[in-house]
Amino acid sequence: MAKYAIGIDIGGTNTKFGVVDKHGNILRQDRLLTNKHEMVQDFIAELHEKLAPMITGAGGPEQFTGIGIGAPNGNYYTGNIEYAANLKWRGIIPLAKMVSEKFGMKVRLTNDANAAAVGEMMYGCAKGMKHFIVITLGTGVGSGIVIDGKIVLGHDGFAGELGHVIVRPGGRLHKGTGIRGSLEAYASATGVRETAIEMLTQNPDVESLLRDYSINDLITSQTVYECAAKGDKIANEVFEFTGQILGEALANFVMFSSPEAIILFGGLTKTGDLIMNPTRQAMEANLIQIYKGKIKLLFSDLQEADAAILGASALVTE
Amino acid sequence: MAKYAIGIDIGGTNTKFGVVDKHGNILRQDRLLTNKHEMVQDFIAELHEKLAPMITGAGGPEQFTGIGIGAPNGNYYTGNIEYAANLKWRGIIPLAKMVSEKFGMKVRLTNDANAAAVGEMMYGCAKGMKHFIVITLGTGVGSGIVIDGKIVLGHDGFAGELGHVIVRPGGRLHKGTGIRGSLEAYASATGVRETAIEMLTQNPDVESLLRDYSINDLITSQTVYECAAKGDKIANEVFEFTGQILGEALANFVMFSSPEAIILFGGLTKTGDLIMNPTRQAMEANLIQIYKGKIKLLFSDLQEADAAILGASALVTE
Repeated sequence: MAKYAIGIDIGGTNTKFGVVDKHGNILRQDRLLTNKHEMVQDFIAELHEKLAPMITGAGGPEQFTGIGIGAPNGNYYTGNIEYAANLKWRGIIPLAKMVSEKFGMKVRLTNDANAAAVGEMMYGCAKGMKHFIVITLGTGVGSGIVIDGKIVLGHDGFAGELGHVIVRPGGRLHKGTGIRGSLEAYASATGVRETAIEMLTQNPDVESLLRDYSINDLITSQTVYECAAKGDKIANEVFEFTGQILGEALANFVMFSSPEAIILFGGLTKTGDLIMNPTRQAMEANLIQIYKGKIKLLFSDLQEADAAILGASALVTE
Repeated sequence: MAKYAIGIDIGGTNTKFGVVDKHGNILRQDRLLTNKHEMVQDFIAELHEKLAPMITGAGGPEQFTGIGIGAPNGNYYTGNIEYAANLKWRGIIPLAKMVSEKFGMKVRLTNDANAAAVGEMMYGCAKGMKHFIVITLGTGVGSGIVIDGKIVLGHDGFAGELGHVIVRPGGRLHKGTGIRGSLEAYASATGVRETAIEMLTQNPDVESLLRDYSINDLITSQTVYECAAKGDKIANEVFEFTGQILGEALANFVMFSSPEAIILFGGLTKTGDLIMNPTRQAMEANLIQIYKGKIKLLFSDLQEADAAILGASALVTE
């Protein structure tokens, strides 16, 4: 009887992976730099090198049900990564097949936000829920949608790209997609940085702690957070604005699938009430009567790396 | 073996109903005025009076699997109509229970757009599709979403209120909901009328056939259509604008559930290319690469009354 599964979370910067037991304990984990490797073959070779001793230590491959992978633009139906903007490997990469051949195990792939949603459902604050949406707020904005206890994959496996919905028609340009006014252009770490720079530029006479940082590289979502926590007016307005837009978008998502909860996940959630309060307010203000006061808006209570590894591993543990 | 089902479509103006056989043929049908009755009991009494001879004619109640009803804000889980803005019966109406007691048959209720989606799936242009969205463009804007061959009901049975998504933050006021900038405020028959009046008012020097109609009552989506068909500039711009907004909204829906098709249904679709062309163009312009050119945008090919009756009846024929 197989006892373990491997979970791998491929991000634009780091790839995290670990061995997970049946109860959702991560027994061993490690990471590597995704973008160190120009060729996906070399990436898989390093992954194998680091995982092989963990597999042996757990009693060999026969103790494993398989490998689950979460990756940007990962497609569950095809096992391919297709046109991922944040990865060096271009075009269509048959990753599931390649990893399966290297490791001699069953491999299931899905997109990283879907893996996070599975992690929340099995081990996080969506435990027991059948209808919820996970929104990942990191460098970009991703989503994993669960309806009737199942991840929504859509006709072709690409459902749940809620970072790309238009929230401000004709608004800020998203450099990656060429589309104006998408949620990701505002509610990502990158978006927070841009909003801060815009507000500083448009209000040259307003004092701000942010003016002590270089616009070129030092104003980040992290520095905006630190200044806001110190009471800086512009930094606080940045989060008010970000939450307003995010909350409007969440209201729209509610009117699609009427979930029990929306779970916010990823770097920006570290800002706590700064983002939560305006988001909740804007969401409620834009909901029609039948939804008002009914949707739980939560922060993930899983460690970010853990949720991704757990969720990915769960793809092969059902 | 039961051979027939009853389908009832309750609209703000008309209620249409009929007897449907296993093959989706409507054998007999009739209608009544919904808003003639202040009391829902009287409405059900008239319904029973008109349906009783049809039931007897088909061999009696034992020949029927039951009654399916589509109604605004109809909730499949509870069998209630809850806070329907366009009906005279206020609050929460336990319609399924009341109809079941009157007729002595099993009754299933859902919202009217969901019923239309079931109709499309069983008998219309979504036959064989597992992932699609029906958008109803009538006095209001409704939606029925199908994922994995099932209507999306959500946590509480109220999923799929896509007419109420915000498409122009801070935009036109929706008098029914009090919310600004929702899709229904623009892409409904009422919205088309409002857009026409706005454009006429804002461009007092531009000649238009629409100026021959009274703003108070004669400018309707129908008259705008007729003038546009005659080449009127403002009337054509009304549909350009409506299609632009509708297309942007559809792009957002695609990024949620990645459907095989979106099917447009209802009164406004009679305008044909006038609405279809700008809608398709705006949808494609706002889709990210992985979806471009892949989503079928179709007009329903079912008669409107038929689709609603067929879809409602299908609730009890599975």
